[in-house]
Amino acid sequence: MSANPIYLGVVGVGGVARPSRPLLADSPRSGTGLFAGDPPGDWATASATPSLNKTGALPAEEMATYLASAPGRAILVDNTSDINLARSYPTFLKKGISVVTPNKKGFSDDLSLWKEIFSSAAQGKALVYHESTVGAGLPVLSTLKDLVATGDKVTRIEGVFSGTLSFLFNTFAPASGSSNAQWSAVVTQAKELGYTEPDPRDDLNGMDVARKLTILARLAGLEVSRPDSFPIESLIPAELASLPSSADGISQFMTRLPEFDAQMANIKDAAEKEGKVVRYVGSIDVASKAVKVGLQYFDKDSAIAGLKGSDNIISFYTKRYGANPVIVQGAGAGGEVTAMGVSTDLLKVMERLH
Amino acid sequence: MSANPIYLGVVGVGGVARPSRPLLADSPRSGTGLFAGDPPGDWATASATPSLNKTGALPAEEMATYLASAPGRAILVDNTSDINLARSYPTFLKKGISVVTPNKKGFSDDLSLWKEIFSSAAQGKALVYHESTVGAGLPVLSTLKDLVATGDKVTRIEGVFSGTLSFLFNTFAPASGSSNAQWSAVVTQAKELGYTEPDPRDDLNGMDVARKLTILARLAGLEVSRPDSFPIESLIPAELASLPSSADGISQFMTRLPEFDAQMANIKDAAEKEGKVVRYVGSIDVASKAVKVGLQYFDKDSAIAGLKGSDNIISFYTKRYGANPVIVQGAGAGGEVTAMGVSTDLLKVMERLH
Repeated sequence: MSANPIYLGVVGVGGVARPSRPLLADSPRSGTGLFAGDPPGDWATASATPSLNKTGALPAEEMATYLASAPGRAILVDNTSDINLARSYPTFLKKGISVVTPNKKGFSDDLSLWKEIFSSAAQGKALVYHESTVGAGLPVLSTLKDLVATGDKVTRIEGVFSGTLSFLFNTFAPASGSSNAQWSAVVTQAKELGYTEPDPRDDLNGMDVARKLTILARLAGLEVSRPDSFPIESLIPAELASLPSSADGISQFMTRLPEFDAQMANIKDAAEKEGKVVRYVGSIDVASKAVKVGLQYFDKDSAIAGLKGSDNIISFYTKRYGANPVIVQGAGAGGEVTAMGVSTDLLKVMERLH
Repeated sequence: MSANPIYLGVVGVGGVARPSRPLLADSPRSGTGLFAGDPPGDWATASATPSLNKTGALPAEEMATYLASAPGRAILVDNTSDINLARSYPTFLKKGISVVTPNKKGFSDDLSLWKEIFSSAAQGKALVYHESTVGAGLPVLSTLKDLVATGDKVTRIEGVFSGTLSFLFNTFAPASGSSNAQWSAVVTQAKELGYTEPDPRDDLNGMDVARKLTILARLAGLEVSRPDSFPIESLIPAELASLPSSADGISQFMTRLPEFDAQMANIKDAAEKEGKVVRYVGSIDVASKAVKVGLQYFDKDSAIAGLKGSDNIISFYTKRYGANPVIVQGAGAGGEVTAMGVSTDLLKVMERLH
């Protein structure tokens, strides 16, 4: 809307930040980059420059002071998954620096940090956009916020929030046709395809889903104290819980996982006997304040059962929409689509700060 | 973000406007109403006051001049479905008055009007938000705009865009279970439930869907000249096309519709023989510039086939998202959810004009 430049401080040069550069370059209203030190000519230079990578990163307080000294509105784009940087958002926000980030750590930590982030934003008249903390580029948080802002009552949110767990269960227990694959074989396949974290236990423990649920529940008005303050069903067998997180631990875990195939087959068969399939879902019941993460059975013709590949699906049940929820579905993980979410947020913040 | 008041001119006091009042009252940042004449105490008064209803409405040029004289930014909220008011959007926009509306007539008329609306907005530094012209309160246009704005290439859009036609086909040819209902009986049922327009031919002719497709195609970059410039399969039998649009014509149409039940049953059976179901859909193939509205067969386990009630579903296929589309699903018609779309737009425009 105007020619006032907006200054960006971008932290993090990994999988998300890399594809986001061309996205921003394509957009009609690119901001001016602002870097600590000489502006790097390209991303490769940036990631190899000590003052610009993790080793030599400026303390958050210094970054905030530097950005606040820009002769215009500034935005911190946090492309890391660093809890420490997230803990310093209030410092940026109080100085009037807006925050755009896919980093879910801060928003799913202690409730006190959540409250401090948003009160600091109000104090500094700064904006906080974090769409891609849930569902990457999918319009999940924006839809929830629009429902709440226009006075609808959200009664229930449920869905598949992990691309990895979506793939595992869509493959292990497909809604149409059948599969004879053992659970451990499906996990191995997903690991080989790069669909899991380097340590598959980081997907199977359910914590990533719990963090996303924490964010959604808070936006729906529930005061969730922490992401581990509600029941989370871990898919790591209790007998293997004490294996170390080292490379050797991963290897032992994968080797011993077949011992538990019969357990998972039993769960699948029990669902099948009811004409259903098992899925790993998160749900929030607003009235009873119940937040849950774990296995559940679904009718084969339900949207959750019919999910393909590693897609996410999120259903919002509200007073206004009645029996049939508002549903958002699609790829919810990956560098490209996460970068899309960050870029969308950035464009929206720039439109509002114009 | 600031205390600057924003002035609203609201036109239309029917099904959409009524529920939108409490929505706005609930929202954290209500605007100040601006009315031609004394501000009415309530909506009932407004709709009964000649200077505020259709009979005594001010000419658009006068409304625009009046709104432009407000001591702050102004927004025209057009809750009508009036093509004439829509044709005057450029007059408002050039004067710096933003437009928020669920009225699809203007955006789906001649391409020249579309272009004039957006060039006028640029000229007047005004905003145009019309989310609820497609899918009511569902995040359909915002999702498409975000994909385009962040540099994704939309390759295909398809979906069920009419709540009425969704209900008719979900009931006539359900994806799970079976139905022996004749086509004409389902149309009669929908009419009795109030799911159709007073004249069901206004749903069955496909024009409402064609208008929505026109808007989506234009946002995806296609220069669609008019909503009747592409193939639209009408569900009005050719033999009944010449019946008058009077109450008597409606009655004759409903009486004679059973003569064509066998034709519709044949279509349903042909789909069934391929293990599929028939649905009334709209689709846009961006590369070949093909826009189509009509009947198509779908796999029974597809999201379109599994639709419930009178829900809409819209799938966006893009380069970034690959084989699995981004899907938005839910109620896409009705006063409450349309008012939600208008209110959401209004909040966004107010945030940007702050």
